[in-house]
Amino acid sequence: MGLDMSLGEAMATQRAVRRLKPDPVDDAVVLRCIEMATRAPSGANAQSWEWLLVRDRGTKERLAALYRRSWSVYGRVARVVAGRDRGKRRIIEAVQWQVDHFAEVPVLVVACLRGVRPYVVHWPWAASSHYGSIYPAVQNLLLACRAEGLGAALTTLPLWSATLARRALGLPFGVEPCAVIPVGWPIGRYGPNSRRPVHEVVHLDRYGNHPPARAGVGGGAPAG
Amino acid sequence: MGLDMSLGEAMATQRAVRRLKPDPVDDAVVLRCIEMATRAPSGANAQSWEWLLVRDRGTKERLAALYRRSWSVYGRVARVVAGRDRGKRRIIEAVQWQVDHFAEVPVLVVACLRGVRPYVVHWPWAASSHYGSIYPAVQNLLLACRAEGLGAALTTLPLWSATLARRALGLPFGVEPCAVIPVGWPIGRYGPNSRRPVHEVVHLDRYGNHPPARAGVGGGAPAG
Repeated sequence: MGLDMSLGEAMATQRAVRRLKPDPVDDAVVLRCIEMATRAPSGANAQSWEWLLVRDRGTKERLAALYRRSWSVYGRVARVVAGRDRGKRRIIEAVQWQVDHFAEVPVLVVACLRGVRPYVVHWPWAASSHYGSIYPAVQNLLLACRAEGLGAALTTLPLWSATLARRALGLPFGVEPCAVIPVGWPIGRYGPNSRRPVHEVVHLDRYGNHPPARAGVGGGAPAG
Repeated sequence: MGLDMSLGEAMATQRAVRRLKPDPVDDAVVLRCIEMATRAPSGANAQSWEWLLVRDRGTKERLAALYRRSWSVYGRVARVVAGRDRGKRRIIEAVQWQVDHFAEVPVLVVACLRGVRPYVVHWPWAASSHYGSIYPAVQNLLLACRAEGLGAALTTLPLWSATLARRALGLPFGVEPCAVIPVGWPIGRYGPNSRRPVHEVVHLDRYGNHPPARAGVGGGAPAG
């Protein structure tokens, strides 16, 4: 089906697919997804993105080691926070699988931004504008992967140390790694996601002024 | 056509549409687009977003005044940088139109994140993870608008002062306004966007190792 899939279906069934087969993925398919990623807007249309396709086992091992280190802390906290919440525990188990198999994933796509990162990022506007020039493209990539039947998920934990990640990837100082998207053929399957009902997260004109709940729009309980 | 539009077409023809008619837009259409926005992933699936739909003229005037102030500086710099580049000057003129008509746009959607913003944002990982939980949803919103035939564009300049923007919108301190998306029926039209060829922005395994240029994939010159 690929990119002919309807926009509505792609969005309604896109979810983090973390369990991936080690089977190789043709570069051409991944390049097509990245080409769709670059159709997204960026600040002043600067298109300051760079996309690394990591297939080399050694490089994947280095990113996997970084991921293991941050997850060893973050995962412990997440387990305490999750308590007995089954939905949250299911996500944590999927992330644990992802961490354990990160080097076996056929392709790790690393989304990067060129240009020295604004060191005025304590200014929310500057930080938002900066990352607002890469994440729309990352979302296009995730939607394109979903349409191609490729499993994918958005991760940032492998990048907790920009310095070590740069070293692993041979990135110059002026290129910031922002997100890692492991891509491969899914072991599980895509399916309808569910979200908080829209009237709960919408405010009319002023914060707190929610629209009435309506039939035909919205959600259900949060899920992976 | 709406959300039945193919993913490929929506992405390939999505572009910033800044010149908008003042004609009202049915809330139901905007809510449908926001519902699609919330299908995007967010860190730990926290869905910490809040979406303000601003139709009130007074509130729009206040955001418009903020936008005029930042654009009076930024636009001047942009004009100098653009020089005689016709593509860039065309974008600047469209933004100038947007600034001048901001209060007449039927709906301003303000995408916000709940939770006190990490003041560790000098740590790139934390900042990237934070904004990586709102911009995928913003991109879904822009794609859904495109499929519905609504003009939309991503702006951050009206939010140069988070304090003044919060005041205009009645936002509590724990809610950060991240982006403003003016939405309305387009005066112009959507059309194919063009981007840098994908082989220029892709690196195989290590930075600088570009794949060969290939027929059937990629680009053309940058455009609006």
